[in-house]
Order: sequence, then C-alpha cells, then structure tokens
Amino acid sequence: MNNQVMEKPTLTVFNNLESEVRSYCRSFQTVFEKARNAKLWDTQGNEYIDFFAGAGALNYGHNNEKIRDKLVNYLMKDGVTHSLDMATEAKETFLTRFQEIILKPRGWDHKVMFPGPTGTNAVEAALKIARKVTGRSTVLCFTNAFHGMSLGSLAVTGNSFKRQGAGVDLSNSVFMPYDGYFGEDVDTMAYMEKLLDDPGSGIPLPAAVIVEAVQGEGGLNSASRQWLQRLARICQDKGILLILDDIQMGCGRTGPFFSFDDAGIEPDIICLSKSIGGYGLPMAITLIKPEMDIWEPGEHNGTFRGNNLGFVAAAEALEYWRTEDFQLDIGIRETQIRQSLEGVAKEYPEISGTIRGRGMIQGIAFDKAELAGRLSEIAFEQGLILETSGPHSEVAKLMPPLTIEMNTLTQGLGILKNSMKQLEAEESSL
Amino acid sequence: MNNQVMEKPTLTVFNNLESEVRSYCRSFQTVFEKARNAKLWDTQGNEYIDFFAGAGALNYGHNNEKIRDKLVNYLMKDGVTHSLDMATEAKETFLTRFQEIILKPRGWDHKVMFPGPTGTNAVEAALKIARKVTGRSTVLCFTNAFHGMSLGSLAVTGNSFKRQGAGVDLSNSVFMPYDGYFGEDVDTMAYMEKLLDDPGSGIPLPAAVIVEAVQGEGGLNSASRQWLQRLARICQDKGILLILDDIQMGCGRTGPFFSFDDAGIEPDIICLSKSIGGYGLPMAITLIKPEMDIWEPGEHNGTFRGNNLGFVAAAEALEYWRTEDFQLDIGIRETQIRQSLEGVAKEYPEISGTIRGRGMIQGIAFDKAELAGRLSEIAFEQGLILETSGPHSEVAKLMPPLTIEMNTLTQGLGILKNSMKQLEAEESSL
Amino acid sequence: MNNQVMEKPTLTVFNNLESEVRSYCRSFQTVFEKARNAKLWDTQGNEYIDFFAGAGALNYGHNNEKIRDKLVNYLMKDGVTHSLDMATEAKETFLTRFQEIILKPRGWDHKVMFPGPTGTNAVEAALKIARKVTGRSTVLCFTNAFHGMSLGSLAVTGNSFKRQGAGVDLSNSVFMPYDGYFGEDVDTMAYMEKLLDDPGSGIPLPAAVIVEAVQGEGGLNSASRQWLQRLARICQDKGILLILDDIQMGCGRTGPFFSFDDAGIEPDIICLSKSIGGYGLPMAITLIKPEMDIWEPGEHNGTFRGNNLGFVAAAEALEYWRTEDFQLDIGIRETQIRQSLEGVAKEYPEISGTIRGRGMIQGIAFDKAELAGRLSEIAFEQGLILETSGPHSEVAKLMPPLTIEMNTLTQGLGILKNSMKQLEAEESSL
Amino acid sequence: MNNQVMEKPTLTVFNNLESEVRSYCRSFQTVFEKARNAKLWDTQGNEYIDFFAGAGALNYGHNNEKIRDKLVNYLMKDGVTHSLDMATEAKETFLTRFQEIILKPRGWDHKVMFPGPTGTNAVEAALKIARKVTGRSTVLCFTNAFHGMSLGSLAVTGNSFKRQGAGVDLSNSVFMPYDGYFGEDVDTMAYMEKLLDDPGSGIPLPAAVIVEAVQGEGGLNSASRQWLQRLARICQDKGILLILDDIQMGCGRTGPFFSFDDAGIEPDIICLSKSIGGYGLPMAITLIKPEMDIWEPGEHNGTFRGNNLGFVAAAEALEYWRTEDFQLDIGIRETQIRQSLEGVAKEYPEISGTIRGRGMIQGIAFDKAELAGRLSEIAFEQGLILETSGPHSEVAKLMPPLTIEMNTLTQGLGILKNSMKQLEAEESSL
Repeated sequence: MNNQVMEKPTLTVFNNLESEVRSYCRSFQTVFEKARNAKLWDTQGNEYIDFFAGAGALNYGHNNEKIRDKLVNYLMKDGVTHSLDMATEAKETFLTRFQEIILKPRGWDHKVMFPGPTGTNAVEAALKIARKVTGRSTVLCFTNAFHGMSLGSLAVTGNSFKRQGAGVDLSNSVFMPYDGYFGEDVDTMAYMEKLLDDPGSGIPLPAAVIVEAVQGEGGLNSASRQWLQRLARICQDKGILLILDDIQMGCGRTGPFFSFDDAGIEPDIICLSKSIGGYGLPMAITLIKPEMDIWEPGEHNGTFRGNNLGFVAAAEALEYWRTEDFQLDIGIRETQIRQSLEGVAKEYPEISGTIRGRGMIQGIAFDKAELAGRLSEIAFEQGLILETSGPHSEVAKLMPPLTIEMNTLTQGLGILKNSMKQLEAEESSL
Repeated sequence: MNNQVMEKPTLTVFNNLESEVRSYCRSFQTVFEKARNAKLWDTQGNEYIDFFAGAGALNYGHNNEKIRDKLVNYLMKDGVTHSLDMATEAKETFLTRFQEIILKPRGWDHKVMFPGPTGTNAVEAALKIARKVTGRSTVLCFTNAFHGMSLGSLAVTGNSFKRQGAGVDLSNSVFMPYDGYFGEDVDTMAYMEKLLDDPGSGIPLPAAVIVEAVQGEGGLNSASRQWLQRLARICQDKGILLILDDIQMGCGRTGPFFSFDDAGIEPDIICLSKSIGGYGLPMAITLIKPEMDIWEPGEHNGTFRGNNLGFVAAAEALEYWRTEDFQLDIGIRETQIRQSLEGVAKEYPEISGTIRGRGMIQGIAFDKAELAGRLSEIAFEQGLILETSGPHSEVAKLMPPLTIEMNTLTQGLGILKNSMKQLEAEESSL
Repeated sequence: MNNQVMEKPTLTVFNNLESEVRSYCRSFQTVFEKARNAKLWDTQGNEYIDFFAGAGALNYGHNNEKIRDKLVNYLMKDGVTHSLDMATEAKETFLTRFQEIILKPRGWDHKVMFPGPTGTNAVEAALKIARKVTGRSTVLCFTNAFHGMSLGSLAVTGNSFKRQGAGVDLSNSVFMPYDGYFGEDVDTMAYMEKLLDDPGSGIPLPAAVIVEAVQGEGGLNSASRQWLQRLARICQDKGILLILDDIQMGCGRTGPFFSFDDAGIEPDIICLSKSIGGYGLPMAITLIKPEMDIWEPGEHNGTFRGNNLGFVAAAEALEYWRTEDFQLDIGIRETQIRQSLEGVAKEYPEISGTIRGRGMIQGIAFDKAELAGRLSEIAFEQGLILETSGPHSEVAKLMPPLTIEMNTLTQGLGILKNSMKQLEAEESSL
Repeated sequence: MNNQVMEKPTLTVFNNLESEVRSYCRSFQTVFEKARNAKLWDTQGNEYIDFFAGAGALNYGHNNEKIRDKLVNYLMKDGVTHSLDMATEAKETFLTRFQEIILKPRGWDHKVMFPGPTGTNAVEAALKIARKVTGRSTVLCFTNAFHGMSLGSLAVTGNSFKRQGAGVDLSNSVFMPYDGYFGEDVDTMAYMEKLLDDPGSGIPLPAAVIVEAVQGEGGLNSASRQWLQRLARICQDKGILLILDDIQMGCGRTGPFFSFDDAGIEPDIICLSKSIGGYGLPMAITLIKPEMDIWEPGEHNGTFRGNNLGFVAAAEALEYWRTEDFQLDIGIRETQIRQSLEGVAKEYPEISGTIRGRGMIQGIAFDKAELAGRLSEIAFEQGLILETSGPHSEVAKLMPPLTIEMNTLTQGLGILKNSMKQLEAEESSL
C-alpha cells in the first residue's frame, strides 16, 4: 500500500444527486467498489483497512465467504426472498438456531419479534410493548444514549443535534446520568433511585428504562457490572421493564454474544440489529420475555420484516457462537488493541487522552476534542478507516471486524501509531 | 393444482418461538420455501398464486431472474455489500440511472436521500425536513392514511388499532377528510381550505400535508386528479410542503411510475420504498426539492442506508421504465382485472360491493365487511394469496406482481371467481 | 352627554408601567373611576353606556346595590374573606341556594366543585376529571371555540393568535366543525359521528367533547337545539363526557339561566364563571354528575377557591332566578335589541352584514371585517362601550348588563344607530 | 379557650353538595364564620389560632382593618369593581405605588402584567413569555417544586399525585435536583451546568428555569444565596430566562418583600400572587423585564385581570413596606418561632426531626412522616390550625400571618408544644 500515490475517484455524482444529509462519504472521500473481511478497495484500486466495520454491522467482516456461499445458494435455488411476516423455511432455520445457540444456553425463553429491518424499528417496538405491558408512558434513558432516528427512538437519544432534527418536541422520555457521568464519587444509580422513590421528584414511575451496556455513539462509556446489576434490580423491584439496546454492542462486539453477559442479568426486552444480519444485511429483532409478549397480531407491522437473505446470513453467522472459540479469538484481539493503545498513549502523552471501551470497541478520548477528527483524517490518508464518537466527537473509535486477521490488525494499528505521530508533530508545530 | 389434497407444513417453530405480533402467517398458514415471479411454493410442494406481492414490495415479481443475475454477479465479485452512507460504485449507478430514467424526463431535480431501509424511515425523514424547512410542527394527513409504524409516521396514520399500539399520545398531526370521505357532495378540499383560512379553526398553518394518491391500506380509496391538483395548489399558495407517500403505489402499481403522474403535480417531497428495492430488498428513498434539501450532514442517519444489494437490484429494476412498454403491459393487466371484477360483481350481486382501486391494485369493497376476510380464506384454500384492507378489513385487495404472466393472472382470477361462488353459497345457506 | 367636549384622562401610568399585553385599555382610552349598573364614568366625569358588561361578568350590572349591601355587611361583621377550601358559612349559603334555585328545579344532582377563581380554572378542572373518569386523553372541541388561556384550556381554544402564545405544541385536542361551519347543507354532527365510527379516521374515542351553546368570542355562532341534542346523544351512546362551557353564556346571558336550557340536555360537566360571582368578583364553579365526581381529595387545588366575597355576592345574585320574572325581563330587552339591529340593517344595507346571536348577546357580523372595529371606535367616541368578536374581529357585539334600564338601553341603541350612520358616511366617501 | 367542650358545626351541606375534591375542610372539620388577623371563629363560637394564613394569602392577617376601610369606602363610592384590563383609578394607584415602593428602591424597571386572578395564571403567563422571548420550549424546574394546577404550571410541578390528575402527558419540562437534593456533598448546580454544557445530555437549551427560593409545598426546602446566585449567573451566561416564583414566599413571608432579596439577584420574570392581593382577594401579577415584555396586545387575556377590590387592597398593603419596620417585626417573630421550635426539638428528641424554613415559614420535618399529620390533628383539637407539606406530608408547617400579635403567637406556639407532648405520649405508648 503506497498511500502517497493514491489517486481518488471523483464524488461528482454524489455531490450532484444525493441529499446534503450524506455524511460519512464526506469524511472518507472515495468511491468504494470491493470489500473482503477487514479490507476495502475503491474504484481506483486503493486499499483501506476497515476499523469502522459498518458502525458495528460487519462484525463478521465484509463479504464473509461462508455466509456468501449460503446466500448465493439460496438465491440460485429460488428461495423466497421477501415474505413479509409469513412463515418461510429460512426464517424457521434462523429461529431454531437462535434458540439453540443463544437463548437455550442462557436458560432464556424470550420470544423473537421481527420489528422491521433496522435498529430503530427494534427500539420503537421495544418502547411500544413496554408501554403496553405497563400502561405507563415515560421511559428513562441515559445521557449520551443513542437509540435511533425515528421519533420514538430519537426521544430516548441524547444527542442534541439529532434531537433538533425532529422539528417537534420529543416527549415521554427522561434522561438520567449514566454510570460515571458526574465523576466517580457520585453514585448515579443511587440518584436515579432517589428520584423514583420521591413522589415529589417530578419523575413518574416509568414504563421502562432503556440502556446500552457500552455507549458506542456516546463516546465508548462503559457501565460497570455492578451498576447494571443494580439497575436490573431496581427495575424488577419497581415493576419497570428493562430494555437492553445491544444493537451496536451485541453479536460479540465486546467479547461475549451479549455485551451484558458478564453482568449476569436477564433484561425483559433486548434489541438486536446491525451484525445480527450476519453479512451487513438489514435485519433487526426484539426479544421479549414471553409473559410480556402481549402484542395483538399485527399491532406493529412493516414491509421488510421478512428479509430472508438476512435470515440465511444470520443463521450462518450464529455458527460462530456454537463454541467458545470465537470469543477467545476476540479476546486475543482485544488484548492486542488495548496494548497498542496503551503504547501509543505512553509514546505521545502530550496529546493522548483516556483509553475507553472494551472488547473490540476501544478508542482514545482526546482532551482536545478536535484531535479525534484530525486523527481520523490522517489515518484515512494512510489507508485506515477510523471514526469518531462522543458528544464532542472527541473519541477516536476502533471497531474492526471481529474476524479481522491478526496481521491486518497489526497493520491497522501500525497506521494508527503513525497517524498519532503525525498528529503530535502537527500539534507541536502550532 | 389439486387443492383438495394439499397437506400443509406445520407452524410449530413459529408458534413456539416467534412473538404474538406475527400476523400474515396466521392468515396464510404454511411454510413457504420457493418463489418465482407470481408463484410461491411451500415446503410440501404446494403451489400458490400471489395476488399480494409482498404488500407492494414485489412489483417485479419474486426472484426476478434478470435482477438475480446482477445480484449474484455482484456478490461473487466481492462488491461492497454494506456501506453506511459512504460512496460506492453500486450507489453511483443507482443514482445516475434514477436521475436519467425517472427524474430527468419529468424535468425534476429532486435530491435523493437514503433515509434507512424501510418505508417508515422515508416518511420520518420527510416529516423532519418539512418541519425544518418551514419551522412549523403540525402536519396535515388524511382519514385512513397509512404511513408507517415508528412514532413519527404513526402520528399521521389513521388506523386506531395501530395508533393505540404507540402507548403514548401521538401529536403534531391533524386529520383531514380524504377525497370523497363525506360523500360525493361534500368537497373535502374546500373544507380543508376553509379551516386553513380561518384563524379561529384551531388548525395552525402546517409544515406539510402528507398524502397517498391511492390509499392502499386504507381501503383502495383513490384521489381524483382534480383533488390532488387543488391540494398541490393550496400547498404552494400557503407555503405548505406537499409530501407524496408513494411507497405502496409508486413503482408502477397504478400504471405510471408515480401514482400521481397523471395529475401533473410535482410534490416537494416524495417517499418511495417497497418496490424501489427491485427484488424485495429493504430500501427506501426520500426525494427532496433541492431548495428544501437543507439538511446538515448527518442530521438524520442510520445503519442500513447503504444496502448495496438493494442498489444493484433497484438499478436493474429501473430498466423496466426506460421505455413505455412496461406501462402498456400493466394497462393490459389492469383491464383484465377490472373486467374480471366486474364480471364477478355481476354474477354475485347479492354479496358484491363496490369495485375500488386502479392499475394493478383493485379490489372489492364488501358491504358486509367480514366477507372480505372469508373470501381471502377460501381463496387461500384454493391456492390464491389475497389480502384484505380498509378500516373494517372490508376490501378484498388484488395486487399481483406487475410482471405476472397473463395465464397466471387468468388462473388467479379464475380462483377468485370460484371463491366468490363458494362465498355466495355459504351466504345463501345462512 | 355631550361627547364633543369630552376631555380624556391620560394613560401615562399604564403606558409606562404596565405590560404591552394590555389590550382593552387601548380600545377604550380613558381611566374609569365609577360605575353603576350599565353606566361608567371616567376620572374626568365623562359618562359611558356599557354594552360590554365585563365580557359577560357583569350580567347583574356594575355595583349592583342589593349585592353591595350584602358585601359591605359581610365585610363589616368580619366574615371570613379568604378560606381556601375550608367550610364557611358564606359558602354553605351559596351551596344551599345554588342547589335550591338552580339544580333542584332541573332535577339535577351535580356536585359543585370550586376549581379556582376564574373560567380557565373551571375548564382545566373539567378536562382533568373527564380524562380521569374515562382514562382517555383526547378532547373534541369546535372551530372558533374559546375556553381560556392556561395550557389545558388553550388547547381546546380555536384562536390561532392565542394558541401561538403558548410557545409549545398544544395537544390532546381535536377540532370539529361547529354547527353551520361549512354552510347549511353540511351536517357537521353527522361528520363528527362518521369520524368517531370510523376506526381509520385518525380520531380516537375522546374523553369528552367541550362545547359552548353560543360562541361568544368565536363570533356569536349559535348551535341549534337539535344539534346540541344530537351531540348529547352521541356522547351518551359512546361513553364520551359532554362538557358544557357556559362561562360567558350562562347566568342568563341568552335568556334562561343556562344557555342550553331550551335544548333539554343535561351535560355531564358544566363550567360557570364570569357572572356567577354576581358582582364581577372572581369565582368559578365546575358542576360534575355525582357518579363522575371521582376526584381524590386535593387532587386539584388552588389558593383562591374560597373567595367568600364571591360566595356572598353569588348567593344574592341567585335570587334573580327564584321566579320567572328576570327571564321575562331579559326577553323584553332581547326583542328590543333585535328590532333595533334589524332596523339598522335595513337602514344601512350597503355596510350591514348578518345579525347574529340571541338573548342579550347579539351583534352584527360585517362582510367587510374591519368595519366592526371602526364601529366600536365611533361608538366609544359617542359614549358607548362596544366590543368586537369573531376570528377576524368582524362582529360588533352587544352585551349590556341584563339589568340595564330600558331607557339606558334605548339610549345605547341610539348611539349605535348614530355610529352606523357615521360609518356609512365614511364608507361611501371612500 | 377550653377545647374540651368545643362542639363543632355539622358539615352536612358540604358533604352532600360539594365535590369530593374538597380537602382542607376534611382536615379542619368545622364551619368558619368570622376572622380577624390571626384568629378564626366557627359558627359555634369556637376560636382558632391560624398558623396557616390561607396558605400564604393572608400575610397581612384576616380582615386587616386598615385595608377593609379602604375596601368599604371604595365600594360605597361606586368605584369600578370589575374592569377587565381597562384602565381604572384603582389600578393606577396600585401601579404607581408598586413602582414607588417595590421596584424603584431595587433599581428595577420590570413591567407589571396582570395575567388573571390566581398564581397559576401568573406562572402560565411567565412560561408563555419566556418561550416567546427565546423561541425555545423546554423549561427547567426542580424536584419538589410547586407552581400550580393548570396544565402549563402543572408540568413544572413535581408532585406526582397532582401530576397524575392531569390525565395527559405533561411535557416541555425537565426536572433538576434542587439545592441539597442529593445530600450536602453533591453540588446540584454543577450537575445542572454539566447537563447544559453537554450536547449529548438529552437536555436541550431551555427557554427558562423556574424556581422558588424556598419551596413551601415541597417541604420548606431553602436554596442558599450562593446557589441562587450561581443559577442566576448560569441563566445569564446561556441566555436562559430566570423565572422566580415568589407566589407563596413573596410579600414578606421569609422576611424581606422578595424571598430572594438577600441573594441580590434580579430575575427576568417574577410571579406574585397570594398576599399581593392584600386582603386575601384573588390577584396575581407577573413582572417582566422591559426588554422581554414583547407580548402582542391581548396575546394572553382573562376575565378577572381587573379585580379592582384587589387593587385597592393591594395598594394599601404595600404601605407596610414603605419603611423597614415591618421587616424588623417579622424578624422578631421569626426568632421567636425558631427558638420555640428548637425548644420543642430539644424536649422531644425521640420524635423530632429537622427544623426547616426561614422567616415566618418554618416547620418540623419528621423522620416518621405520618407524625406531621397527626400533630396537625392534635393541634386542631386544641384550637390551632397547622398544615403539613413535603412529598410525604412529613413537614408540620408554621406560617402565621406576618401581622400576628406577639401574645397570639406565643399562645399558638404553646399549643404546638402541648401538641408535641401529646404526640410523644402517643408514640411512646405504641
């Protein structure tokens, strides 16, 4: 890879025909053509290492070969592609395997709902059923939470720029401080409990609490096991439903299949999307405890609940979780990423901030927020795709495919290190 | 096809593992395995003619071979599958072709927004941008409108059963009577205009009006050309944005590519989904006049805006519209369906109601509402998939793939006729 | 009265110290000092005939002597003035007399609630209890309705200027066309019924309908007896509560004590304020059928629920209704007003519009809306206080005290006639 | 006073005819007839000392003789009683005197708005104008705040029982922890500032913050001067309007005329009601900085904005503030109350809780919440009217008229002490 000579394809068509809302194509200015596992190539043949992984939708890599075989085979045999919510063989296989590999070993019997093809559908459905079960309307959510762009999900999303996009008041949600929000000394779960116990707090008994175990968009903030356990206990004690949004952190991103597995909790409702579709195909599911699955038939519907290519890919992807091996592989990569970040932090103490995250979503939170974005630019020039997150876009976020080859990972971390070097040079020359 | 001996596959897996919200699989109780154009087969080999077409997502038929070739080819060459909103070759091709075949001939220069993979995303984005452009919050919508299940779209959807599912108050929408709602003598557009002109009406100047040219879920109600033109004029005069939801009726369902083409109007915002994805793949777009495309980058986002398989399929599907031929073919089928329905109505006057709809979405509105559902049951027993719609599910709705072979169409209409015969026999024996 | 020489007091103090929101003092630019029955005098001794009557709060005239005697006596004997909602002798007297004179003769057993001292409190309480009784949130209201300025009441008020003042979205209300709104040929009650019967109309089953029998602020629109009866029947059939806002029209303004007495209906909830306080003193009550009076103690409260001067005055004012005499007197005045308006209309056909209203609230709706305001200006110059109403302030509204002496009434009507003459002269000189 | 033989009047009329919502008459079961300064007498001649003072509406005592003289004189000379918002001599006097005695000495030039006759009207108007000035909708409020019962005010009131009475979702308000809410170690103003500075907190830039310097209904929680000053500074820095609700605490309740005078802040908007009417007469005002007084004429209105008896009484009551004497008198009483409470606390340590409040609103917050209510019962049996407050009604609240005679105060405090003795006896016998 000789990035110095990369000639980039033109974006004229996109600039002329696509809406101004487009964004990632402004950060990563090229036209991509091919992809395989952790690598992308643009139409000029330039190669990129992908530390973004479709914002978590490509945990199993781009164009995973094992999955692709299944897809092509299914297409060639005229398998049903689109089925609304009618029963198909492909859906049956997915359901069976999901129960066998994911639910059963945990002793769970959640029902699987197909709420539509994307994460925000899973969240909208979760909020609806929580409100129906409890007959209450308010949902508690957390500072810097991200749950989606449709109005229901947006109401529980913290980002003010996204919220203003609604153009209407977002209601029926109340924000609570996330774990560690007000410093280590303030116990935010105690604060939430006090508000719930105080009939004069202005906070009604909510239908549900919706939470991420690690906040991806919010800046790689992690909730401790204890905090999650306490949250789960408070919910149970007060008859509040616990909704775990594992859309970005699920499917192994933090190590285990569910990001909250190590806390030993069993949420009432779980939202999955992104990598559940295995191959980057649109798919989402909402898991609901059977006693709370009180939907009327068709009370929530949608055209693309039956994307069978998604079911085929998803079923194959679940095979990664049949044994412990995959999680062990993730652990090895987690360690390498952590060591590399710590090395970088040590080498460039002037510009480095805090290391955040866990599993295969880790990053650097810069004290000087704009450095994260500049690092991303430099890295891209050197062939590495790296995004930022956090309320001030202050975190440079590493989230390669979980399946990334070790040498590609090493190569990518090398580019990161070089980019930090350049960043440090730029900063010291100011 | 000998329906008497059809042995059906069991639905045990679905009954045990899937949420109670599932619905179509309760009406059409079998497990589908294969599909081609207008036919489906279940795992026992039973054959069904599809007069439902994925609720409008399969205008080009199941597993359209021309499109499939493109998909398989794309998969095999490692084309980028998932790209968020980064630029890809597949997206470029779609954009270019959409401009060339759809926008340019109409003299339009709408920008194309990718709001997420499903119709409700397209509507949510449309509502957001209309509110942003105008700085106003209210949106007018119509009795029996259907626009989607996420909170923003649900607020402009008429169906009370779906609305109650929200569990919260749905606000910022005001319902107006659709064309013909209060009988032929009451000019509903004049009523709307009076309310808008009266500063004491309680109806504020809205950001937008959202409308379907034909209401699919609402019972195949059609707006006249004159009514739509007047609506467009009122909107223009008052600075209200006109949002045309062509998710179900677009892509040729009523004949021309857009269902409102014959009214000669140019809506400010147009929502497309369902068949825009060509092959039943999740995809949606929101078209926005350039002067209204004032989004900030990333103000609305989502994981599955870049489903490249959808772009590949969509680009190929657009080829159907390069010449007039496809629309002529639809016209021929429209006529046959109309004649067949009129014949049925004449033959069974005791039970028949009104014929509704146009193009390749037509149906019978029964005076005795439950007959529509019973007709659907009988038809399914005889190998025809036929859904109902309308506020009382009183309309038996025919919407086969636009690409249906003439003999399959004849065959399907024959089953419909037989089913009506059986229905009439059941009714007279009461 | 020689209006040519009236020298007006200065408004400097008000202009300097009072908020810009002040309004009537801009129309009637003087400083008032004394008042008696239907006459006011300013600090310069100029005399005015009052055809406005405190917007309906002075049905028994300014400083009604019989009532004043009671007030002074009560004050001098140290009667409790302010009592929150504690029991007092004055309140007991009012309650007893209200039951005896108003409720009992109608065979009603509504409970009397003291919701706070002004009309909007009565409406807020009515909406709350209706929502509590039904467990539903939406309230139907009517075009050009006026119910008050606090957020709950404002949400059911049609005037867009007032609504915009809220600064937030007003929700949980749906506006229906009032009787005659869309012309005589359109049956607005049938329209409302159709919407309520249609599960796809977007209109949920409401908690209540709130209505005025005559819309005072809305432009003196009267609902027919039949229309009100049908409304009452629909409400009863569907379990919707009927709230009759008789704040401006009650206490005899239209003839009988309640403006809807001639329709023979018994609303579930009735709001009274304005003249219920007898002497223009702040007071309001909400009448609730006993089976709907399911308030918890203190669930709604307020500091000025126990304005005992109001109770003393109100109790005395009720004496007007012990016999039929007062209503007969009102009828005589109603006829004189009507004849005078008809005479004026005949004399100045070029500028006259429609005569509206009934009882002692009648007026002229001008086709050229601004004439109403100009008429009011001219009349004031000539010593007559006359306000406008209607969405375009197009109605010149006559609402003198019900107790106005016949010769003062004649005098006031004379000024009106002269003012019309001048108005006509101005118009023809354009 | 020999309470053993008190025979109480019957409440039959109230029980039969008044709504179930009545509450104080259930705690203080008698029918009151006469009152003077800090004493009340029922219809049986029983005497009561009033430590409740109309919930703060009777700071100048019951039937204050000096004020009464003015009222009777005004009534007898036919002064205008009801004037909507037309200019009257009585209003002119009030405005002039309010400026002279209250505004001018503080160097303020707030405009005076008459928003309607009760506190909730003042708050509704304050919220409206704050939203209009800023173009924003959210208002921050505090845990255990109380601002009124109409929907706008209720949305910023913490009490869950009152909030549920709304029957609809209360929106556009966000609750913040009041000073000391989460213990002394947590700086709640720093927490609020962090939320406002964090674009991911979910808390938008608000139109206003509404706050009480001492929370009366909320349990006599006092904000420190520093906390208020910091709040004022944050508001100023961020362009947020500061609304000070001084309805219960203003007019000298805490010592100075405004409860926040000692903090040296100048709120953008101030709400006054209760004792502003001098004699317990319904009246409220909203003070608005002139640059924020951007109301359109009539944008907010109401029937009882012109209660001239209120103006007459209010103008006379302001005379109390012409010199420092009245505040000194309050200080003497404050000290006596404090000493008495401390004495009681020392004498009955087993049952006593914390002493709260300042000025002439002080009380005992019991650890065992129900003791406060029981104390109130015992005291009433002994001829003392004493209410509770706080989210669990755990605070016994002393708020006698500011004008209470020293010996009556001593007498009342004596009853309190006796009541504590009895309470302690009851508790130890459990």
